[in-house]
Amino acid sequence: MSTLLNKPRAQWIMEQEGLDGLLGASFENVLYLSNLWSENFFVLPRQTQVFAIVSRAKLDRPYVVAGVGEAANIFESCPRGTPVYLYGLHVRYVSKEKPLEEIEQYVKQHVVDGKRFANVVDATVAAVEAAGLSGGKIAYDERVMFPDTMAELRHRLGRATLVPGYQTFRRIRAVKTAEELRRLKKALALTEQAIQAAMSVAKVGVTEQEMIEEFERTIVSAGAKPVFTQLVFGRRGGMGNVMKRDVKLAAGDIIRFDVGCMVEGYNSDIARNFTLEEPSAETRRLYNAVLHGEEVAAAALRPGVTAREVFETGVKAIREAGIPDYRRHHIGHGIGLETYDIPTLMPSDETPIETGMVFEVETPYYTLGYAGLQPEDTVLVTESGGQFLNSISRQLEVWHS
Amino acid sequence: MSTLLNKPRAQWIMEQEGLDGLLGASFENVLYLSNLWSENFFVLPRQTQVFAIVSRAKLDRPYVVAGVGEAANIFESCPRGTPVYLYGLHVRYVSKEKPLEEIEQYVKQHVVDGKRFANVVDATVAAVEAAGLSGGKIAYDERVMFPDTMAELRHRLGRATLVPGYQTFRRIRAVKTAEELRRLKKALALTEQAIQAAMSVAKVGVTEQEMIEEFERTIVSAGAKPVFTQLVFGRRGGMGNVMKRDVKLAAGDIIRFDVGCMVEGYNSDIARNFTLEEPSAETRRLYNAVLHGEEVAAAALRPGVTAREVFETGVKAIREAGIPDYRRHHIGHGIGLETYDIPTLMPSDETPIETGMVFEVETPYYTLGYAGLQPEDTVLVTESGGQFLNSISRQLEVWHS
Repeated sequence: MSTLLNKPRAQWIMEQEGLDGLLGASFENVLYLSNLWSENFFVLPRQTQVFAIVSRAKLDRPYVVAGVGEAANIFESCPRGTPVYLYGLHVRYVSKEKPLEEIEQYVKQHVVDGKRFANVVDATVAAVEAAGLSGGKIAYDERVMFPDTMAELRHRLGRATLVPGYQTFRRIRAVKTAEELRRLKKALALTEQAIQAAMSVAKVGVTEQEMIEEFERTIVSAGAKPVFTQLVFGRRGGMGNVMKRDVKLAAGDIIRFDVGCMVEGYNSDIARNFTLEEPSAETRRLYNAVLHGEEVAAAALRPGVTAREVFETGVKAIREAGIPDYRRHHIGHGIGLETYDIPTLMPSDETPIETGMVFEVETPYYTLGYAGLQPEDTVLVTESGGQFLNSISRQLEVWHS
Repeated sequence: MSTLLNKPRAQWIMEQEGLDGLLGASFENVLYLSNLWSENFFVLPRQTQVFAIVSRAKLDRPYVVAGVGEAANIFESCPRGTPVYLYGLHVRYVSKEKPLEEIEQYVKQHVVDGKRFANVVDATVAAVEAAGLSGGKIAYDERVMFPDTMAELRHRLGRATLVPGYQTFRRIRAVKTAEELRRLKKALALTEQAIQAAMSVAKVGVTEQEMIEEFERTIVSAGAKPVFTQLVFGRRGGMGNVMKRDVKLAAGDIIRFDVGCMVEGYNSDIARNFTLEEPSAETRRLYNAVLHGEEVAAAALRPGVTAREVFETGVKAIREAGIPDYRRHHIGHGIGLETYDIPTLMPSDETPIETGMVFEVETPYYTLGYAGLQPEDTVLVTESGGQFLNSISRQLEVWHS
């Protein structure tokens, strides 16, 4: 069983930054380095301390630090033989009636019989030493590690050099592996299905909340996790993201979806626009202009250009297509373990576009008192330019139920 | 419109700790101090920087720091007239066709016309000054604030004293206000409804995943957020929390629920146990012993005792009721904006129990190769002892569909 990590890219970036090791602490970086997946990550985001450590010398061998309660999840998620450093106390009894299955033996070995560390710092120090990193330079997840844990680790790992690594992880994750692409496509396909399910209940008088519930039922019915469901009617859609959801659909409203879910740790983020009756010519004209810009930007996503250049290309296309004053802080972003992975298609981002990056390209046009118009699609970078991964129409669609 | 903050308690704890102000950065503390609620909190947990600041002198007047994209949500969530310090750039056009509604005028004022700060540090410095705290002692959310943001803030707020406040927020939040209790009861009632919905599809051969989906459909159909759905069959339940969900229900299995959701920011966390046919006498005996201990511990939750004493009372009751070797690291915890609020009913916690605290009391008994038995209920502390807030039976129930 391989991990999700893009090993050649990690090797290259760690060499560039002079890094010997990586210490992931967010659920996304722990998943990325070790495959560990546990619902506990989401229950106590301010209290859970689970880490995965790899050395540049052995990128496919994660060392996992976790509370003892994770033993069964480690057995079922991580590569067989993953070294584990468990801390804390959980009580488990052992049946005398029945022989234990392999996973139960594993839990017994680690939780009942095995060495448990007194706390997360002791466990992490042991893992860093076992990984051969106690004299090395290690990039850690500085936005997630607790300050007191870090202070103790710095003290205990006096020979190691600990440097902030949030951005290093993001640089490595920017180019997706085949397994990551499979998960992103699955999240996208489910999101498209959920949009269609929500539209199937669209009619004059339905509330935003009723359509949101239909969307989210579709997500959880596939074993996935709803992340955000911005489904906004009419002029409220012109304000951007909003929360009040008791608004009722009127005949002329534009229905704007800006929605995403999580499948096996990977996110989707797409936008769609519908009406129940033919929109005004002006609405069609504006939508077609931003859609044109989105398609031009998507096509421009090829190796050899920068994120800034793609931004400029997309904005120029919209201005020429009929919105001469079009402005925007960004027109897209990477997608992956975070809903915004790098790069961002914006004026200040000089990141070179690479084959295998996956973007959400979006060119919204929000007008107070009118509506929000927003195409947003998932685009894979290939040698010959961006390739749309979406299946359903990108047009401003008049919905016929 | 009042905020959720327990003001007398905040006053008292801030006096004890010599604090002039609080700076909340987690979604839960921002909600607690300012009522601000936005889906964006959950989309980019490692990238969103939204803060709420209050001074001890004016606990009901939050100063909100946020990206400009939050303007509409601030208008709809926060007390009218809340001072806001918005940073960054979002482009919004303004319709010339129609007069703006009040919320659209607010967004125009803040996003189009108003002063925007260049970055989160500039905005926070201005908010701290406006709150009269630039020379004060401020407790901040150290597990959530980014280290680089904190370093800049320390530099820019040279006269202020910034101290870690994660535990201060938890101490304040330990005693719930009436509005918090209303939300906790709503989350609990919905969770009970979702357990019954999941049981309605229980039959030999159903998978864990199928029952989990039924549970989560019930949660999202009420506009709430699934947080964790540990619904485990038979001996897998003896390992604690697990993730593989393709297991099929056998006739003799115990079905263990340990589940929670979020309603308006507040969490539930309860456990229930069911069988399809009459369990063995030994299973009944063990379940009744842990249930007895849970009920004794719940009754013991009254002012004048400590969390440790309640732990000891509960464990002793289970030992006397027929599991003489019963051990456990804790038998319950507070519930609120975090699934584990303080205190924890464990040997090392000397926190005095107070009226108005809300607990999840739980006395699980996990046996490898056999099953997990787990009662867990929501208990409000009153002068005369803990009061169960649950509606459905706590017994090990034989389900008749």
